[in-house]
Amino acid sequence: MATAAVLALQVAAASTAGDVLDERLAVTLDGAEKGLPVSELATHRGGRTHVVSTDAGRLSVSYQASVRPEKIPTPPPATEDVVVDAESIAALRQSRYCQSDAMAGFAATELAALERGPDLARTVAAWVFERLEYRAGSSDTLDTAVDTLLAGVGSCRDFSHLAITLCRALGVPARLVAVYAPGLSPMDFHAVVEARRGPGWEVLDPTRLAPRSSLTRIATGRDAAATAFATTLSGQVELMFSEVSTVVDDDLPADDHFTPVSLA
Amino acid sequence: MATAAVLALQVAAASTAGDVLDERLAVTLDGAEKGLPVSELATHRGGRTHVVSTDAGRLSVSYQASVRPEKIPTPPPATEDVVVDAESIAALRQSRYCQSDAMAGFAATELAALERGPDLARTVAAWVFERLEYRAGSSDTLDTAVDTLLAGVGSCRDFSHLAITLCRALGVPARLVAVYAPGLSPMDFHAVVEARRGPGWEVLDPTRLAPRSSLTRIATGRDAAATAFATTLSGQVELMFSEVSTVVDDDLPADDHFTPVSLA
Amino acid sequence: MATAAVLALQVAAASTAGDVLDERLAVTLDGAEKGLPVSELATHRGGRTHVVSTDAGRLSVSYQASVRPEKIPTPPPATEDVVVDAESIAALRQSRYCQSDAMAGFAATELAALERGPDLARTVAAWVFERLEYRAGSSDTLDTAVDTLLAGVGSCRDFSHLAITLCRALGVPARLVAVYAPGLSPMDFHAVVEARRGPGWEVLDPTRLAPRSSLTRIATGRDAAATAFATTLSGQVELMFSEVSTVVDDDLPADDHFTPVSLA
Amino acid sequence: MATAAVLALQVAAASTAGDVLDERLAVTLDGAEKGLPVSELATHRGGRTHVVSTDAGRLSVSYQASVRPEKIPTPPPATEDVVVDAESIAALRQSRYCQSDAMAGFAATELAALERGPDLARTVAAWVFERLEYRAGSSDTLDTAVDTLLAGVGSCRDFSHLAITLCRALGVPARLVAVYAPGLSPMDFHAVVEARRGPGWEVLDPTRLAPRSSLTRIATGRDAAATAFATTLSGQVELMFSEVSTVVDDDLPADDHFTPVSLA
Repeated sequence: MATAAVLALQVAAASTAGDVLDERLAVTLDGAEKGLPVSELATHRGGRTHVVSTDAGRLSVSYQASVRPEKIPTPPPATEDVVVDAESIAALRQSRYCQSDAMAGFAATELAALERGPDLARTVAAWVFERLEYRAGSSDTLDTAVDTLLAGVGSCRDFSHLAITLCRALGVPARLVAVYAPGLSPMDFHAVVEARRGPGWEVLDPTRLAPRSSLTRIATGRDAAATAFATTLSGQVELMFSEVSTVVDDDLPADDHFTPVSLA
Repeated sequence: MATAAVLALQVAAASTAGDVLDERLAVTLDGAEKGLPVSELATHRGGRTHVVSTDAGRLSVSYQASVRPEKIPTPPPATEDVVVDAESIAALRQSRYCQSDAMAGFAATELAALERGPDLARTVAAWVFERLEYRAGSSDTLDTAVDTLLAGVGSCRDFSHLAITLCRALGVPARLVAVYAPGLSPMDFHAVVEARRGPGWEVLDPTRLAPRSSLTRIATGRDAAATAFATTLSGQVELMFSEVSTVVDDDLPADDHFTPVSLA
Repeated sequence: MATAAVLALQVAAASTAGDVLDERLAVTLDGAEKGLPVSELATHRGGRTHVVSTDAGRLSVSYQASVRPEKIPTPPPATEDVVVDAESIAALRQSRYCQSDAMAGFAATELAALERGPDLARTVAAWVFERLEYRAGSSDTLDTAVDTLLAGVGSCRDFSHLAITLCRALGVPARLVAVYAPGLSPMDFHAVVEARRGPGWEVLDPTRLAPRSSLTRIATGRDAAATAFATTLSGQVELMFSEVSTVVDDDLPADDHFTPVSLA
Repeated sequence: MATAAVLALQVAAASTAGDVLDERLAVTLDGAEKGLPVSELATHRGGRTHVVSTDAGRLSVSYQASVRPEKIPTPPPATEDVVVDAESIAALRQSRYCQSDAMAGFAATELAALERGPDLARTVAAWVFERLEYRAGSSDTLDTAVDTLLAGVGSCRDFSHLAITLCRALGVPARLVAVYAPGLSPMDFHAVVEARRGPGWEVLDPTRLAPRSSLTRIATGRDAAATAFATTLSGQVELMFSEVSTVVDDDLPADDHFTPVSLA
């Protein structure tokens, strides 16, 4: 940081993700642990935001944890009953990068042939997978689902934004989940979709780059505006470098990206 | 409605707004009260969403209530201490109609001369008041703060969106509040800004069309995507007509739009 | 006009449109012919712009003419030879309402199945016809081909802008022609597409609302920014009212909208 | 090129720029001069477009010329008389990257204090110079004057687009000129503004990075959509590398960027 700054970090596993056997958030300034004040805030859906206040200098943030899912979540049932709660209403609304209001007409005609019903979100994610070319670094932080649709290319964030936008435009509540994704290559933070399915939510990865059952939830929100791993609350901050590493104890599970899967 | 439909309504006074002496939400279909199922959901900051399921036909929704503020909220103090909580972080993030990320460079140069400190949000609202021309009906529902800045004209929603966006771009958490606004002319639903001020929030009306101390909070959110008075959750719905009427028992209070005021 | 003003009008039949048997451009201010100065400028592809200087007041402009096409233009041949000239390069470039550069990825995937070759522009126009809903007054003057694609609805200008944009994105030079269109209902100014076909140009109407062989060319340009029927060059001008009437001597010809047709 | 391709190049000095003492356009494919067909097309305002047809391979294009301006153009006089011709009407219209129609309201209020009259374009260019931060590579090819205004940063293309847009919104015809600019650092193709001044045009450089009297005109158009140094007309082409070098025989002239200067 060129100046003193306050940062909001979203890097810790969500409180719902499972048993955290060990966890360490280390924050150093110019190489030395200086006892920088860090506070933890609870956010939506088990998310944990860490607020760090720092003086000017080179800040290093390191987070590590081992997470053991207590039990595998039951996949949501294929009921067609509409369950309306505040969460699903929020996940239907247009947002910064998912302008479902602007895309309603396009979605209705382009996806007219997709079968309505409990599997609709999955066929939307499949459409996005078939349609877009994956290219890391092809988008910038201002790009929206509209830009991605027009360009035909994007990263995980863009694939998810487009799938979320089309789901909402078709009446399916959908939101973004920032996750750790063992098996992702090249390794990085990953973003997937959580779509309403009956009384529950299913997780969808329109990029199909990592098995869904090994994902660990970090942050949940309407789109990437809510799930950024670092947000500058005050001061001038420049990102120098970031690195992510995730491993699973056993072999990576397979994923056909068609069976419903829930995320803890 | 041309079809059966499910609607989410945000028309009731927020639970924090004061003592509700009488309240009635009447829903009729084709002129007859049919015992349509209505459920109430609690949302952000005391908001109450009513979910109505209806068959095809002409739906009429009527809400009326008398609200007596138990006590006038204390205006937030002029402290410069930054209070960081989950609410203020959410109110700093870019949103559908308030793309503060895109407008950061503009805000920094255009408003470079505005004095930083606890009164910054108020001077931003004053800049918007001076800058925009108020014209009811000049915008459509897809218009964002960027469109408003470029056009130089807007309605209450647009004035508030631009003020919120500039506040966020300058580091001040800000959000939208849908309100009943006695004195507004022509009478309609109104939208104002709630900006962080020390440990509290102050209410700002960049249109200056109604006194802030008589406002009644309905819904609170990052922008108009979250506070719409009616949202179609399923089915085909067309708005035929809406009418709003509000009165105060005594004379309307004056408002200089400079003194800090809080909203219950 | 609230003030003195200078207006550029594009209402006269292009010089290429045929024999003009009688033609009258009448300009009155506050009901009286005042000998307002009118000059004629030649523009692209036979277009004629009339520049009118006027004092403040209520300006009335009336244009009438009978046009007899000297001969029906030969339809362009189905050659696949690329003819590159300055006109075709200009008609390939992105423009205000036809952002073919932004839509290149979308066009390549969405229209991957359309057969390349001399009939490509025609199948693009057919795709637009099938895809969009026609609704007069559904768009505003700032709407672009991107807005139209997303909304799924538009007027003749929007249908043409989307077809032009997709043509360019697929490598086919295309431009807008403002025309008089006998048979159009409701009658108004009309906008169609002129797309390169071998050494010539074919005219396409993605709305299919009027037979192409009866169209009379007014103005030609990259998009509606170049073909507006009235442009304010200086002063404050408000459009009060406009009316268009066109008739053909004989029965309206049929149009299958598939046979190549050229526009004089 | 991965495929055979046709390219339109705009790299040659405009025919109006002066006496060309020697000129050479060399085109080689995979290192060997293969007698690739090159044709020259005349475009707007003396521009010369070279169309190159090539097979797949690594294409190298090299252009060099010495230009001696026959005489220094007379600066346009400071008359306030409006001269309306087809050129000035075209330069008033909104275009791909210069959406003056969308920015009319902003321009009218933001620049309300700028003195109207023959020097208006120059004060607009000065406003852009003061307002934007110059950063080569900060924008991408889809960015418009609106994006630049919001971001507050850009390259020469962006500075010129914003100045052109504001000029048009204030009623001053303005267009883009691609130029060779001795003294520019780092050296590259440069883009400047040509704004109407009485019966003539003056050249303005909102970046102030090179003296205007040493500029050599290449291409002239409504914005960068018309002046790209290379445009792919068919085939798949990727730019590997480009380099520009310009020198003047004598010392670089000084430029105060306030005196009216015309461009040959």
